[in-house]
Amino acid sequence: MSRIYDRVALIGLGLIASSMAHAMRRHGLAGEITGHARSMETRAVAREIGLCDRVCDSAAEAASGADLVVLCVPVGAMGQVAAEIAPVLKPGATLSDVGSVKREVIAAVGPHVPQGVHFVPAHPLAGTEHSGPHSGFAELFENRYCLIIPQEGVDRDAVARLEGFWRAMGALTDEMDADHHDLVLAVTSHAPHLIAYTMVGVADDLRRVTDSEVIKYSAAGFRDFTRIAASDPTMWRDVFLHNREATLEILGRFTEELFALQRAIRTGDGDLLFDYFTRTRAIRRGIVEAGQDTDAPDFGRTKRG
Amino acid sequence: MSRIYDRVALIGLGLIASSMAHAMRRHGLAGEITGHARSMETRAVAREIGLCDRVCDSAAEAASGADLVVLCVPVGAMGQVAAEIAPVLKPGATLSDVGSVKREVIAAVGPHVPQGVHFVPAHPLAGTEHSGPHSGFAELFENRYCLIIPQEGVDRDAVARLEGFWRAMGALTDEMDADHHDLVLAVTSHAPHLIAYTMVGVADDLRRVTDSEVIKYSAAGFRDFTRIAASDPTMWRDVFLHNREATLEILGRFTEELFALQRAIRTGDGDLLFDYFTRTRAIRRGIVEAGQDTDAPDFGRTKRG
Repeated sequence: MSRIYDRVALIGLGLIASSMAHAMRRHGLAGEITGHARSMETRAVAREIGLCDRVCDSAAEAASGADLVVLCVPVGAMGQVAAEIAPVLKPGATLSDVGSVKREVIAAVGPHVPQGVHFVPAHPLAGTEHSGPHSGFAELFENRYCLIIPQEGVDRDAVARLEGFWRAMGALTDEMDADHHDLVLAVTSHAPHLIAYTMVGVADDLRRVTDSEVIKYSAAGFRDFTRIAASDPTMWRDVFLHNREATLEILGRFTEELFALQRAIRTGDGDLLFDYFTRTRAIRRGIVEAGQDTDAPDFGRTKRG
Repeated sequence: MSRIYDRVALIGLGLIASSMAHAMRRHGLAGEITGHARSMETRAVAREIGLCDRVCDSAAEAASGADLVVLCVPVGAMGQVAAEIAPVLKPGATLSDVGSVKREVIAAVGPHVPQGVHFVPAHPLAGTEHSGPHSGFAELFENRYCLIIPQEGVDRDAVARLEGFWRAMGALTDEMDADHHDLVLAVTSHAPHLIAYTMVGVADDLRRVTDSEVIKYSAAGFRDFTRIAASDPTMWRDVFLHNREATLEILGRFTEELFALQRAIRTGDGDLLFDYFTRTRAIRRGIVEAGQDTDAPDFGRTKRG
């Protein structure tokens, strides 16, 4: 691969930004990588591990002169950061983000984007339960989708260049509009996260079952929930507050379904349960066939830890 | 390791039984392994792959003369199978099971156990989303807990021997009473499974989000739910019908919590969400420290598939 942007600025240095830094370096996609994080501690760690070519003390300093600026902060902070860097954005530069919510981020960032700057929102569907500048790794985006949300009247060359950049980091790309993105993500990510957080909270609260039992016996299904529920609290607080409508809609549908299954358990309707569980199996097959997970029979725990 | 039982009979030849067969052979724990499955097709597959030394056409034939008989059928079928094999059980033999529910299984099996036979219920907390005689592998139980539920007045030597057998297959063992087992499992396994099934069902139903979108974009959290929701439908139907009370109690607590979090989203109470998500993170750390999952940063998807 060869250089796609001369200078890339990463604002926010968590899991996604640090993974981007590693991936850009591995594939030689940027001439210089600058970075900024609001916390002094995060900046110190980033400097120590040499995450970027330059870690700057302000977002504006990092963004100044960059050809691509990527906002990698929690979605609730996007608007403010955009306001801070707007005055220094270079004409012809691309401004993007990696937020898990698109409608409200676009509404918050859009008004700050100067004339001549190409605003191309994006969302890489990749993550782990870890966070911070230490947590990134170059392979995070490999074979994962990055959704691109082109705005009306945007420069198509800027969009194509950003898509090429994500593909060069190993991602697949698709375009989508903001409202549909927020609904799809409410289903595939936001509602599942809230549900996992809730179930782990219930387990923690239950006085008759000790925490140590929950931990020792987690392999029976609960373990996967705890992984999801270990994700960054600030990021997820902001996701729920900024994709409120779609998340609440899906949770409403979820509760309705859950009540129907609870009722089947209570009334002993085994056929309803069996049919339901048979149907959900098919979706899993689709995911394995689409290459979005492995079919390995060991629940992902072989000799790695 | 050396032989623990001269002859072991596996009644039911799914994931757990086939993994036991592989583990027993690898560690040389049984002189002869007999097996039976109700379905002719399953028996044919088991014979074809040489899963047991002898695959028998009836449960009684397989159990006859065995030193250890393990019931590996869905929990709803345990009582009937116990009735079928009771007449042929050898005096001094141990009868065990691997059911995910203990109180109702003990109530269904117990009355059939002949004098002189040691009934020692057990439950290995291990599984994958796969099922059938092809799905087993010798490492399934390694570092996973097998819970032993000793009955009042049981022969302690028989219990110790069965625990040694499970440890020889790589498992850790703990003893527990049936009611507590059923409550702990409702938290760590049964409620999480029903919740995962429900969420996958909701995604499948949602007409505005296509199945292919759900599948392509599953990496954002949903993927782990689909793995859980791909588990064997018959097994899980029976689990819910036979651990009804504890499962419904936990689901009731879950719904109550979920409503509180939904309300926080609706009212914009970010502090409540942040505090809740911070608390659930700690449980995850405990699980990783207890060796019940890996901390590898790639969501369990590296180069295996």
